[in-house]
Amino acid sequence: MPHIDLPEGVPGIRSAMQFRPETAAHLNALAEQLLRADNTLSRGDRELIAAYVSSRNRTVFCEHSHSAFAALQLDGGIELVEDVKRDPDTAEIDPKLRALLHIAGKVAVDGKSVTSSDVEAARAEGATDLEIHDTVLIAAAFCMYNRYVDGLDTWQPSDPQMYQDRAHLLVEHGYGATVPASV
Amino acid sequence: MPHIDLPEGVPGIRSAMQFRPETAAHLNALAEQLLRADNTLSRGDRELIAAYVSSRNRTVFCEHSHSAFAALQLDGGIELVEDVKRDPDTAEIDPKLRALLHIAGKVAVDGKSVTSSDVEAARAEGATDLEIHDTVLIAAAFCMYNRYVDGLDTWQPSDPQMYQDRAHLLVEHGYGATVPASV
Repeated sequence: MPHIDLPEGVPGIRSAMQFRPETAAHLNALAEQLLRADNTLSRGDRELIAAYVSSRNRTVFCEHSHSAFAALQLDGGIELVEDVKRDPDTAEIDPKLRALLHIAGKVAVDGKSVTSSDVEAARAEGATDLEIHDTVLIAAAFCMYNRYVDGLDTWQPSDPQMYQDRAHLLVEHGYGATVPASV
Repeated sequence: MPHIDLPEGVPGIRSAMQFRPETAAHLNALAEQLLRADNTLSRGDRELIAAYVSSRNRTVFCEHSHSAFAALQLDGGIELVEDVKRDPDTAEIDPKLRALLHIAGKVAVDGKSVTSSDVEAARAEGATDLEIHDTVLIAAAFCMYNRYVDGLDTWQPSDPQMYQDRAHLLVEHGYGATVPASV
């Protein structure tokens, strides 16, 4: 049972957002900018970073949600997403994305663990400063979203299928398009 | 030296925000809502939570900034802030704030470590669901801001005095009031 009186039957961050629309608006606007606004990193790749960080933080709701959002927007679908979460080093992704996921995984532990050589490795694979910046901030932001969802002990369904329907809505309309929307 | 080409001579999150104003706008709007909008928790108490979490995460820029912001808005000034960062259990603060800081410290490690008894303890001291919610989200948000500042290896002056002038501006005008503003 959630730690505070959240709306029943509403999963994860959506219940906390319904409880507190004043903060939800900003959380959704940030997610929209980070994961969907114009960027040289594709929407699928950015959702993959979100899913990977959420999986490292073991936050079931965010992991399943963003895995579904990534799968819908990547050619490799859910199999590729699962491969990446298992081990980015062996997953069939391009080397630049692999280097960025490596940085994201470090940020999930502690920003201070990102080294110059981690960043140089990403740059050597073609990553720009903006892409490195956005990767760090996406990973950092999911350390917030994950702690928010877990810290209130929200309801987090464990069946990935339950996240599929919402994924289509999200991919079509974006964060904050429905009121309140999910992250 | 920062991992990416950030503006020189600009410290901490301010350099990252100048580099990427598209995300800065949302980060500032979120900070303004969490730390300064109308709330039964005072601005000083909320800045204290931010300073405490940043100190636990050892992020120098955020710790000094929010310590200065808290000190200006709390009767106990910087001595009280330092006492709290050293140990909330022995600092002279009210029991409700102590219980909320305890929850914030747990969120800083992992949202899943917050227990029902942590929340019950806060409620027994008079904390409302909204105050518990906002404490969890402030702590979670500073796990983002801290990782953002550290993950880019921004310049973080170690002299607390360097944070004083900005503190007056912030307390008077808020986050995002100057362009770009600091968190």
